[in-house]
Amino acid sequence: MNRIITIGREFGSGGRELGRRLSELLQFAYYDQEIVSEIAKRTSMSEAYVQQIVEHKPLMSFPISIGRSFYAGVNPIEQQTQAIYVEQHRIIKELAEKSDCVIVGRCADYILRDRHPFRIFVYADMASRMERCREKGPAEESLTDRELKQKIQSVDRNRAKYYEFYTGQKWGDRLDYDLCINTTKTSIKEIAPVLAKLWS
Amino acid sequence: MNRIITIGREFGSGGRELGRRLSELLQFAYYDQEIVSEIAKRTSMSEAYVQQIVEHKPLMSFPISIGRSFYAGVNPIEQQTQAIYVEQHRIIKELAEKSDCVIVGRCADYILRDRHPFRIFVYADMASRMERCREKGPAEESLTDRELKQKIQSVDRNRAKYYEFYTGQKWGDRLDYDLCINTTKTSIKEIAPVLAKLWS
Repeated sequence: MNRIITIGREFGSGGRELGRRLSELLQFAYYDQEIVSEIAKRTSMSEAYVQQIVEHKPLMSFPISIGRSFYAGVNPIEQQTQAIYVEQHRIIKELAEKSDCVIVGRCADYILRDRHPFRIFVYADMASRMERCREKGPAEESLTDRELKQKIQSVDRNRAKYYEFYTGQKWGDRLDYDLCINTTKTSIKEIAPVLAKLWS
Repeated sequence: MNRIITIGREFGSGGRELGRRLSELLQFAYYDQEIVSEIAKRTSMSEAYVQQIVEHKPLMSFPISIGRSFYAGVNPIEQQTQAIYVEQHRIIKELAEKSDCVIVGRCADYILRDRHPFRIFVYADMASRMERCREKGPAEESLTDRELKQKIQSVDRNRAKYYEFYTGQKWGDRLDYDLCINTTKTSIKEIAPVLAKLWS
């Protein structure tokens, strides 16, 4: 059976980088944005729209122009959100069938629970997460500390709501992970090879 | 600098066994009951009494770090509890100076924080912990499931109170550990060599 590593992560904890580095070191396939692209292709929705859905809490309101026409008793946004989740579910199962892999986010730990993935949760203190966000990209450069902290908390709140909606589990509850890794003041580049030993 | 691994653990999670096995595999010194024996020796209290103190919630009304005025009729139990903690603190610092080591419990993660130990927290779901308790010893054999569960919860409550009293930190808070390991349905004997790779 293929070896599957799923990574849940707090925003700014370096979980995505850890996943990517682990996959490179272990020569496992790596899936993250690829899943969004594939959903977009299969549902004929734009990648940006799919991204928005999978990064936000479910069933929230979007501009009417994005949705299809309203029919009595049917919420088109709800339908699209469900369709995206169903497609995501299918794609993740397919990918897990193909080869050893690392999958970041997307409720993959829950979706693949019958295949017993190794479930990692990556977290860090707020100061480290803010620092990592500032290093990562220009989008965060113009934010004040307070704004950045609010953004981090908001992203995590949405992740938690999304995860809880589709899994019925509390996002970040340690009992739903095999290993929880604290990346506070830690270089992901340095810890990835150490962690990779667990599979070598 | 010596490599130090500290292990906090839920009762029945196999944290002690994991610590012992890691120390054997890594050829690190292992300290657990040895600390209690040493405290007993140095304070001239019985080992059983020291054990009782360090496994129960503290009897003092204020954290040890807070200055207290002297007054007539100081509670002798409080004095002894404090003496035991002070001695434990001293012994743990001495042991960490001596060699690479694994220390189970005893607030060692906090006491040695200036030496940056690798801090592990071991946990598991209740069913696994109950099963492990039943396998471990005859003391739990006669208990009903309900009684055993209550015992586990009670031991953990006391550990939490003891830890919080002396460290000011919430016991089991993931931010105070580098790695949290879920031992639900896991054989400690099997995972110890895998984890030991992290230090090899």
